[in-house]
Amino acid sequence: MGLAAKASGVAGRVCGLVRREESIGECFSAGVVDDATLDPAEAVAGAGLVILCTPVGGMGELAGQLKPHLEPGAILTDVGSVKADVVAAVEPQWPRFVGSHPLAGSEKTGVAHARADLLQGALCAVTPSAQSDAATVDAVDAFWQALGSRTVRMSPQAHDSVVARTSHLPHVLATALVRAVLGGAENGEAEFCATGFRDTTRLAAGSAPLWRDIALANPEAIAAAVADLQGELDRLRGALDAKDAAALEKFFEDGQSLRGEWLRGGK
Amino acid sequence: MGLAAKASGVAGRVCGLVRREESIGECFSAGVVDDATLDPAEAVAGAGLVILCTPVGGMGELAGQLKPHLEPGAILTDVGSVKADVVAAVEPQWPRFVGSHPLAGSEKTGVAHARADLLQGALCAVTPSAQSDAATVDAVDAFWQALGSRTVRMSPQAHDSVVARTSHLPHVLATALVRAVLGGAENGEAEFCATGFRDTTRLAAGSAPLWRDIALANPEAIAAAVADLQGELDRLRGALDAKDAAALEKFFEDGQSLRGEWLRGGK
Repeated sequence: MGLAAKASGVAGRVCGLVRREESIGECFSAGVVDDATLDPAEAVAGAGLVILCTPVGGMGELAGQLKPHLEPGAILTDVGSVKADVVAAVEPQWPRFVGSHPLAGSEKTGVAHARADLLQGALCAVTPSAQSDAATVDAVDAFWQALGSRTVRMSPQAHDSVVARTSHLPHVLATALVRAVLGGAENGEAEFCATGFRDTTRLAAGSAPLWRDIALANPEAIAAAVADLQGELDRLRGALDAKDAAALEKFFEDGQSLRGEWLRGGK
Repeated sequence: MGLAAKASGVAGRVCGLVRREESIGECFSAGVVDDATLDPAEAVAGAGLVILCTPVGGMGELAGQLKPHLEPGAILTDVGSVKADVVAAVEPQWPRFVGSHPLAGSEKTGVAHARADLLQGALCAVTPSAQSDAATVDAVDAFWQALGSRTVRMSPQAHDSVVARTSHLPHVLATALVRAVLGGAENGEAEFCATGFRDTTRLAAGSAPLWRDIALANPEAIAAAVADLQGELDRLRGALDAKDAAALEKFFEDGQSLRGEWLRGGK
């Protein structure tokens, strides 16, 4: 984001708050900041926009550390992948806060992998609450657009419900599949698992502590998404028990056509 | 298989039975047969080994068509991905039948994509029943080994139970996930689905009639595998409802480590 903010000209000056002394040099080498510091007060001094980039469980604490040093008119946002919990933790501390979730990134972490065009064309959710003031929402929205993102506004709860289905559900399902196939007594399953199993379970390789925190920050919406999926599986089992050829064909046919429409939709 | 049988020298002569006149020329062009014909009697005349390669629902009927023309000592096998149903349909017609399932192939179909090394190193299940005679089982096993496969012997029921978990379960799950995420009222889900969703649902692109037939040929084992998976999801929902951080971390951690062990196991 620092790189993109500098490249787009939207920021007069970019300052990074880092946790480790070594990160300061890394930030300068990668050219992602104009300045970097370990000191919260120095980081936000004179800043018009402050972006919280820490795991979702730590956003409230970080906002509390920054609050005494923020400019009175400063606007605050974040990049967490869960929104209702973050908004609840940060907004009461700083009313000019509106949550964001840019859907961009890669499995590579660290400033050395920074790319100025990462947000170009990416979707970015901007999640005002009922308390948000319009000018703050517009400013956050305009910032992401300046970085090349397509923004979509939705409530924090609507956001969490959608990503519970599109992102969190595939992840927990991949994990449940690995456990169901490989977690029991060994009957040769490992040898019979091939490329289909490998791809369907790829997401299960993700960091367990990271996903524990996402699950803890969005438990109701994930549970609801899992329940919907179980409803699909209940209907499938009904068709299997009844050996209902038409229902089984429709089950697979709908899945194939819905996915095809989605792919043709531009993803 | 024709190409591999010729290349390995295991077959003195390979004859292909095809359904369309044009296929005869295609078989010759690809060099996969010594001879090709539309006539079942001609196809199996003098054959020591006959391999049924038609969708699983049609194996019994094909065996019935060939039976009057088979040499008395001919050995019969097949390449279907479900075994108990096929064995039940074919064995009563021809006792010297033992089912096989070579786990090799690609999404490309047609003789033009034939490769002599497709079975090299591939796993091949050989599924004798309680009635199979040892010499027939050994002959079928030796044939697949001559083509470079690693064979594993198991009962038709054990085979169907294992592939229900390792192959059929990932497929129905990918389909159920597409339906659960994209099948409801549109709340922006399609736009929020990204590469994780794409990979987890890749299998849902498979042919609906083909998967309908696999589901109809193996309904009990697939339903049992789905029930196991639902058990994993029930436990997950319990941990979500209780906001049980330790249980959630263990859920993701076990999935990650079981998959890692499987990948390191050579796949």
